[in-house]
Amino acid sequence: MKHFLNTYDYTRPELQAMLDEAKRLKESPIGEALKGKTVALLFLNNSLRTRTSFDVGANQLGGHAVVLSPSGGMWPLEFEDGVVMDGDAEEHIAEAAGVLSRYCDLIGVRAFPKFVNWEEDRKDKILNGFAKYASVPVINMETITHPCQEMAHVMALQERMGELDGKKFVLTWTYHPKPLNTAVANSALMIAAKFGMDVTLLCPTPDYVLDQRYMDIARQDTSGQGRSLTVTHDIEEAYSGADVVYAKSWGALPYFGNWEPEKPIRDAHQHFIVDEKKMAMTNDAVVSHCLPMRRNVKMTDAVFDSPACMAYDEAENRLHVQKAIMKHLLG
Amino acid sequence: MKHFLNTYDYTRPELQAMLDEAKRLKESPIGEALKGKTVALLFLNNSLRTRTSFDVGANQLGGHAVVLSPSGGMWPLEFEDGVVMDGDAEEHIAEAAGVLSRYCDLIGVRAFPKFVNWEEDRKDKILNGFAKYASVPVINMETITHPCQEMAHVMALQERMGELDGKKFVLTWTYHPKPLNTAVANSALMIAAKFGMDVTLLCPTPDYVLDQRYMDIARQDTSGQGRSLTVTHDIEEAYSGADVVYAKSWGALPYFGNWEPEKPIRDAHQHFIVDEKKMAMTNDAVVSHCLPMRRNVKMTDAVFDSPACMAYDEAENRLHVQKAIMKHLLG
Amino acid sequence: MKHFLNTYDYTRPELQAMLDEAKRLKESPIGEALKGKTVALLFLNNSLRTRTSFDVGANQLGGHAVVLSPSGGMWPLEFEDGVVMDGDAEEHIAEAAGVLSRYCDLIGVRAFPKFVNWEEDRKDKILNGFAKYASVPVINMETITHPCQEMAHVMALQERMGELDGKKFVLTWTYHPKPLNTAVANSALMIAAKFGMDVTLLCPTPDYVLDQRYMDIARQDTSGQGRSLTVTHDIEEAYSGADVVYAKSWGALPYFGNWEPEKPIRDAHQHFIVDEKKMAMTNDAVVSHCLPMRRNVKMTDAVFDSPACMAYDEAENRLHVQKAIMKHLLG
Repeated sequence: MKHFLNTYDYTRPELQAMLDEAKRLKESPIGEALKGKTVALLFLNNSLRTRTSFDVGANQLGGHAVVLSPSGGMWPLEFEDGVVMDGDAEEHIAEAAGVLSRYCDLIGVRAFPKFVNWEEDRKDKILNGFAKYASVPVINMETITHPCQEMAHVMALQERMGELDGKKFVLTWTYHPKPLNTAVANSALMIAAKFGMDVTLLCPTPDYVLDQRYMDIARQDTSGQGRSLTVTHDIEEAYSGADVVYAKSWGALPYFGNWEPEKPIRDAHQHFIVDEKKMAMTNDAVVSHCLPMRRNVKMTDAVFDSPACMAYDEAENRLHVQKAIMKHLLG
Repeated sequence: MKHFLNTYDYTRPELQAMLDEAKRLKESPIGEALKGKTVALLFLNNSLRTRTSFDVGANQLGGHAVVLSPSGGMWPLEFEDGVVMDGDAEEHIAEAAGVLSRYCDLIGVRAFPKFVNWEEDRKDKILNGFAKYASVPVINMETITHPCQEMAHVMALQERMGELDGKKFVLTWTYHPKPLNTAVANSALMIAAKFGMDVTLLCPTPDYVLDQRYMDIARQDTSGQGRSLTVTHDIEEAYSGADVVYAKSWGALPYFGNWEPEKPIRDAHQHFIVDEKKMAMTNDAVVSHCLPMRRNVKMTDAVFDSPACMAYDEAENRLHVQKAIMKHLLG
Repeated sequence: MKHFLNTYDYTRPELQAMLDEAKRLKESPIGEALKGKTVALLFLNNSLRTRTSFDVGANQLGGHAVVLSPSGGMWPLEFEDGVVMDGDAEEHIAEAAGVLSRYCDLIGVRAFPKFVNWEEDRKDKILNGFAKYASVPVINMETITHPCQEMAHVMALQERMGELDGKKFVLTWTYHPKPLNTAVANSALMIAAKFGMDVTLLCPTPDYVLDQRYMDIARQDTSGQGRSLTVTHDIEEAYSGADVVYAKSWGALPYFGNWEPEKPIRDAHQHFIVDEKKMAMTNDAVVSHCLPMRRNVKMTDAVFDSPACMAYDEAENRLHVQKAIMKHLLG
């Protein structure tokens, strides 16, 4: 059985086939590939774009989406096998996944980290539990990675630039008042590496380097294609000659769950904002962000509202790539 | 691009064309006018009737509704241009509206006042922000006015009475334990004026007169058609010879955000309830209320359950007029 | 007008006809019986299985489901006639039911007890209010009984065992840290009696016997078919020769709303867990539970994961029986 949990489970040609299908669906959005099928969309966290684009996408393909968004929190789930469930958990993930599989043909799962213990969060238990126990395909709608966003991003890049191999891709950390999820950063790094770009991770200090798991995957993909993965804290080095600038804020993993001492570091790096001066150092780079985005905090209006910015196209492409992914899984 | 934000943006013949279409749709509810189309329904406040009637209506026309109802509140939106978004707001309304426009063909917005500062609330920022930044039509699903309710009301009146010109329409304030939104009152006043009735606003004191903006619009519409707009605090004067009695409670604007001193005034006017004795003064008037309604507080059971009451028909007509409005905007 | 409020409103042949239809729908799930129809699903309590299965089922029959799930609680409803609604209630159930009837063709209602006063809760006011005031059929989606679960259960039993007459059915109370709703227990007792089984209710003490209303209905159905209804607190007596074991936890009614003194009784009966040793006393019984279920608290993994357990089939059958019920009501 196929799932869509992470792009690293797929080869570049497999992902490209889905992107090509997404481009066809963008041209011709209405179809019957999901006729008679139901997609369960389980949101353990709020969503606007993901919820809308999956629901619309399923419908445009003739299917039906059921949005499950436990208000006040779903009842606690148990993940371990063999446990005496006399604590908080009311249901084992085996049953939650197993029963949904009896009603639906596909299950999407959004489950953000709890931001207390990264060692625990990085196990991605809810997503992996659904993948283990569901008897239908499971899609990651953002957990500790966000593969649908990556796909939408690379689709937008290909629309703008065609061939991506050898382009200089810069993932730049930007300031945000709160320490955010690393999911989109992890995913941006991996997709850039997968598609043959020279990848630069620009961040304030070594504490902001991403989880070793994702750094390793990106390094493997760059080196396997003769490309580079560079970590730098030097803004000029990063931006010089860049073809793509992707902005995202995230919290530094060493401070995970103990965020107070991380705050002054973040505060000291507000100048990482993407602005016209930095963009002038690039090779006429395109720029993007996954949205929602704080204007003039992460990126200036001048950059965001310029033709270089493809954030809207990337957001729209969520619809198209997700339809292609659903078709792939149910095809 | 057309929106449906307020009835005052439309001429009476334009509104009548939508009402005529609504009557046709009431006869023949199933169609294909929205085939392949998606309607986003954004509820920043709770809803039962509006949510159901829009969803059912879109579906009956072959379309699909996506209900977006941020539990625990949507992340705060920024409305000003050029702002450094380092406060609470996580997203500018430009992006929220812009991205939804990429996924959907129509956006409905419900956004009640915050009841703290009327000068702020009367700007209707969320609705107007969506209208400004969306690239698809926007419908007001109740903000500081409720144009869909007005349309349903006038449709029910036309079903009951045929020609409305020259009828005496009384909008009567009624008691409610809490100070409520003026949206339905504003809208009732405007639609009665627009459709050529002699309009009487009955309320406890001058403090309960509606916002000058809506009073002016209503006065312009009545005087333009040789009709009258009368404000009175005299129950007998208002009810005498009335053809239509519309009941609604609202809070007095001068006390907006400082409601305590307004409470004794409201409490002293519980006798504004619509009852049989008052109805006996009318010209066999029809009576209505937008629902939900506190029985025997705003209107007695004897009146509400009498054949004169058309509240259910008005509620049902929400479905039909909204379908006509959607057809109009996407036609 | 037909409703589906409780199985005791139907004869065994009427229920069997719905079960037969459910079996046909399980074979051939896609149809048009609800084409152009809308089902309102009103959830005053959370739901995963019921919400998904009704929504999917309506859709598979060509209809449309509107899920109404008032976040933060629906506004309080008034149930008494003739009341001056100057308290909390914002809307009379007459209007809530009446207006939904204008938009939809069927209304499903989930409204759990409030767990404070059983004399009040056992009136099932919300469900009965909808049935009284709606002008379209109403389905019980779990209140103080759970007839859809019963139907799914007996469907699974018939799939496993064929003829049910004369089989020994054991409803066993099991431990749970909290005092739960008796709805599923009431329903299990009634359906077993209705379908001609010899019914044994196994519970810790006489305080755990179910409400007299349901005991009487079950006794009438068993005695009317020459079968028995036995209450026992003896585990061995109950399990010996059992053909069906149905596990469920519930709170003892004499402690309703005053749960503290009930806790030590529950705690003292954790050995009521369904385990292999108890199952060995049965006549190779099938076993089930309505889910969610605390593993190794109510039932051991060894039993739950054994071929004897039909909980997943029962859960799946919710979809099929509910479709048959909707077809029955709208046919």
